[in-house]
Amino acid sequence: MNTSDRLIESTQELLWERGYVGTSPRAIQQRAGVGQGSMYHHFQGKPDLAAAALRRSGEQMRALAEQQLGGPGTAYQRIENYLQREREVLRGCRIGRMAQDPDVVADVELRAPVQETFDWLTGRLAEVIEDGRRAGELRPGAPAVELAQALVAVLQGGYVLARSAESEEPFHQAVRGALALLKSQLA
Amino acid sequence: MNTSDRLIESTQELLWERGYVGTSPRAIQQRAGVGQGSMYHHFQGKPDLAAAALRRSGEQMRALAEQQLGGPGTAYQRIENYLQREREVLRGCRIGRMAQDPDVVADVELRAPVQETFDWLTGRLAEVIEDGRRAGELRPGAPAVELAQALVAVLQGGYVLARSAESEEPFHQAVRGALALLKSQLA
Repeated sequence: MNTSDRLIESTQELLWERGYVGTSPRAIQQRAGVGQGSMYHHFQGKPDLAAAALRRSGEQMRALAEQQLGGPGTAYQRIENYLQREREVLRGCRIGRMAQDPDVVADVELRAPVQETFDWLTGRLAEVIEDGRRAGELRPGAPAVELAQALVAVLQGGYVLARSAESEEPFHQAVRGALALLKSQLA
Repeated sequence: MNTSDRLIESTQELLWERGYVGTSPRAIQQRAGVGQGSMYHHFQGKPDLAAAALRRSGEQMRALAEQQLGGPGTAYQRIENYLQREREVLRGCRIGRMAQDPDVVADVELRAPVQETFDWLTGRLAEVIEDGRRAGELRPGAPAVELAQALVAVLQGGYVLARSAESEEPFHQAVRGALALLKSQLA
């Protein structure tokens, strides 16, 4: 792995664990095994590097979601596969956790990859719901984008509840509850 | 307001805005207009004061929720009133945001009021769902606690999506989506 990739990967990990305010340039350099001069050769500073790390985390999250959402099965099955795929629940979401960081929300460069990832995910879930409606599998009803936002929110809120309880159980309960409600939309 | 209450209220505000790691004892003293000696007369330190602030925020959140969940109306209406009541969406949830803070999650005294608040809220929503089922208003189906966790997660995740977008709209969309799904449970 080249120096730039090592810096990005170390920043991805530290942002996930400690958030933006809790991640120092020094900690990034130490984890990447890279000197200060080398870091500033590749990146202008912490904001620049953090934006690159969040863009990469967003790409990786989209690729993972597409495995299930673009995979085989009915619309309901694709959504079920996505909601129930293996996750490191107690670590929380590396994208969603950034929304609690006031310095991220206030900086348009840092917030953009977070917002874009959720926009993509909501749009993709809404497409799958529309697919299911066109195929006569899911009943028409509320706007697909509202159901999609509710499903994305269940995952994001599920992480919050799991970390609060130091247990994965509330996350899995919330997902099962959401799937039970979605199942009642089957035609 | 006495000194102890001023310190607790200032800590509640700072934790909401900046999180635990972003809140210094000095900032608390400044906002409360209280000297360092006086703060350490009333509280052992930042962890002790933060735990008191989170307990009070939890009590206030429960009292607000009870206005709708224990109010008039059918089970569905009480839940709808609760999910749609006025909120400062872009500020996020002062309880849920703490779950992203690694120092809060790692400290049992700080995590306890967060977990207890969500346990109470999930239990109370499950009671309302059970009320509705006993009254023949809601159909039997998935365990009430799973539906309740999904609803709490929609709110918590809705805050995440709204802050990511710097717009209240994703929160309101997620709530409308969840209510549309819940409505399909009406008998």
